Amino acid sequence: MNDLYDIAIVGSGSAGLSASIYASRYRLRNIVFGKMPGGTIADAHKICNYPGLKDITGLELGQRMHDQAKEQGGEFSFENIVDIKKERGLFKLITESGKEYFSKTVLLSTGTERNKLKLPNEDKYLGKGVSYCATCDAMFYKDKTVGVVGGSNAATMAATMLADIAKKVYIIYRGDKLRGEPAWVEDVESKDNIEVLFNTVVIGLIGEGKLEKVRLKEENKETSDLNLDGLFIEIGSRPDISLSTLLGVDLDEKQHIVVDQRQATTLEGVWAAGDCTTNSNKFQQVVTAVGEGAVAANSIYCYIKQNPSCN
Amino acid sequence: MNDLYDIAIVGSGSAGLSASIYASRYRLRNIVFGKMPGGTIADAHKICNYPGLKDITGLELGQRMHDQAKEQGGEFSFENIVDIKKERGLFKLITESGKEYFSKTVLLSTGTERNKLKLPNEDKYLGKGVSYCATCDAMFYKDKTVGVVGGSNAATMAATMLADIAKKVYIIYRGDKLRGEPAWVEDVESKDNIEVLFNTVVIGLIGEGKLEKVRLKEENKETSDLNLDGLFIEIGSRPDISLSTLLGVDLDEKQHIVVDQRQATTLEGVWAAGDCTTNSNKFQQVVTAVGEGAVAANSIYCYIKQNPSCN
Repeated sequence: MNDLYDIAIVGSGSAGLSASIYASRYRLRNIVFGKMPGGTIADAHKICNYPGLKDITGLELGQRMHDQAKEQGGEFSFENIVDIKKERGLFKLITESGKEYFSKTVLLSTGTERNKLKLPNEDKYLGKGVSYCATCDAMFYKDKTVGVVGGSNAATMAATMLADIAKKVYIIYRGDKLRGEPAWVEDVESKDNIEVLFNTVVIGLIGEGKLEKVRLKEENKETSDLNLDGLFIEIGSRPDISLSTLLGVDLDEKQHIVVDQRQATTLEGVWAAGDCTTNSNKFQQVVTAVGEGAVAANSIYCYIKQNPSCN
Repeated sequence: MNDLYDIAIVGSGSAGLSASIYASRYRLRNIVFGKMPGGTIADAHKICNYPGLKDITGLELGQRMHDQAKEQGGEFSFENIVDIKKERGLFKLITESGKEYFSKTVLLSTGTERNKLKLPNEDKYLGKGVSYCATCDAMFYKDKTVGVVGGSNAATMAATMLADIAKKVYIIYRGDKLRGEPAWVEDVESKDNIEVLFNTVVIGLIGEGKLEKVRLKEENKETSDLNLDGLFIEIGSRPDISLSTLLGVDLDEKQHIVVDQRQATTLEGVWAAGDCTTNSNKFQQVVTAVGEGAVAANSIYCYIKQNPSCN
C-alpha cells in the first residue's frame, strides 16, 4: 500500500485547496481531485471581496491557490471521482478513467452545481446560445443582444459585465426587485444598455440550430417572444450529492452535507468543507470555503495523529 | 444623528476588515476601531497558509486588507473603544480620547491578547529583554543569546526566525514534545543553533535594569540559571473580555463570545467574529477570521434590511 494517502480531497475549489495547503503544513500526504483549480470561483469575472487580493479574476485566484497548494506539497489529479467506498477502515476512490486511490480519510469539497431552467430543449442549446457562465462566454456576444435570467448577485454581476461587451442586455427576473448586493444593483442601474424585465419567466427556447429567441411570460400578461443571441442562466446552484449519497453521510433538507464544528460528517473518517456543507450559515463565499477547508485539515490532523492536545 | 453608523466594528484584525469589506459591498455605513491593521497577524513574521498570497508578512497582509476595506468605503478610527452601551435601541461607543460614536449594530472582532508568564517583575522587563512579539523585536538580538518560552506553532515559528538572527536560541518548554505544525518543528530541528529544554519552566527573571538571566526549573531537578539577552514569551492568548462584559453577552468557559451560525451573540444587535468567538472550532487562523467576518456582515445586512430572502 505505497499509495496510501492521509487525505483524499474530492473537489479542487477554494475549500479543497485551502485544506491541501493546511494538510501539507501538517505533513499529511494529500491529493486533490478535480478538473478546475478554484472550482466555482473560476467562473467569477471579478472578485472584490477576498481580503488581501482586490479586483482579482476568479481564474487567477484559483490558479494562485492551486500553485500554492502544489508548492506546499499537495498532489493533484485532474480527474473527477466517480466511485468511493469504505473498505476495512480505508477509503477506495475511483476516477473517471478507472484509476484507484486509497486514503485514510476523505474530505468532500465538492461545492455546488448550477441550476437549470429545466426547459425540454435547454441542453440542446448549450454552447449554441445558452450559457451558465458569463465569465467564460461573454466575449462571444460582442455587440449582440443577450438575456440574463435571475436577480441575485450572480445575475446582476453577469449583467454588468455583459453590458460592457454586448449591445443590449435584458435581465429577466421573476421577482419584482433585484436581490443582488446593492453595489452590483447600482452598477446595473448605471448602465444605459441594461433593461430589467420584472415578474417575468422564460418559458421557451426557440431557434434553428442555435438560440434565436426566448418566449416570455410576464405576470398577468400574454406570452411574448424576445429576440436574443444569447441567454445566460444565473439562477443559483445546489450541491452534487452523488458522492455523499454513495458514502451515506447525512444531508439536510437542501441536500447540504451536515457537518459539526470540526467539519466532520456523520460518517467516521469523512469530512466536508465549503459550499456543499451546512456550516458558515451557508453563506457560500471564498472566505467561508477557505476557513472551512482549514478547520477540516486541522481536525483530520488531530484524528490521524490521535492528538489529545488538538481541539 | 448625522453620525449614525450601520455597523461599528470593534477591532481592526482580519475578521473586522473582512466584515468592513463585505459591509461596504452591501452599502452599509461602517467604521472600524483599532490601532493595528491586521491585529494579531501583524505580529506574524511570515504567513504561508493564506490561500492566494504565499509567503507574505503579517504586517503586509494586514495593510492590504486595511487598504482594500478603505477603498470599498469603510471608515477608520485608530483609537480603541473603552466604553460601550445600548441606549434606546442604539449603541453608543466611546474611544480612549472620549469621542462618542453611535451605531445601529456592533461587531466585536476584538481577537485575543497574549498570555504572560505572570512572574512578579515581568512587566518591568518589557522592552528591556522581555518581548511578546518576535517579529517586532527579533532584530534587536543580532548575534545575541535568546530564549523562547512555549512549544506551539507561535513558539516554534518565533524560534526559527530568531535562529537566523541571534547566535543561540533556547526553546524553554514545559512539555516533552513540541506541539507546533510538523513543518515548523522540522525547521527547528534543522537549525544547529536552536536547543530545546524540555520539561522546563521559567520561574524567575533576573537583571539590573535589563534582563540578564532567567531562573529555570526542570522537572525532578534543582533550579538553574541561564544567561540570556532576551526572552520571547509565546504561550498562547486569550480574549480580552472588557467590552463583552460591559455589553453582557454570553461567554463560554474559556471566555470566548458565544455566537450562533449567523455570528450573532446573545444580545440583539451585537455580532462577533474572529478569534474571540466560539465558532470555526476555535481554530484561530486568518482564514477562519475572514470567513466569520463575512458571515457577520451578511447577517447584519439581513438584520438591518429586515430582508426575508436572507439566511
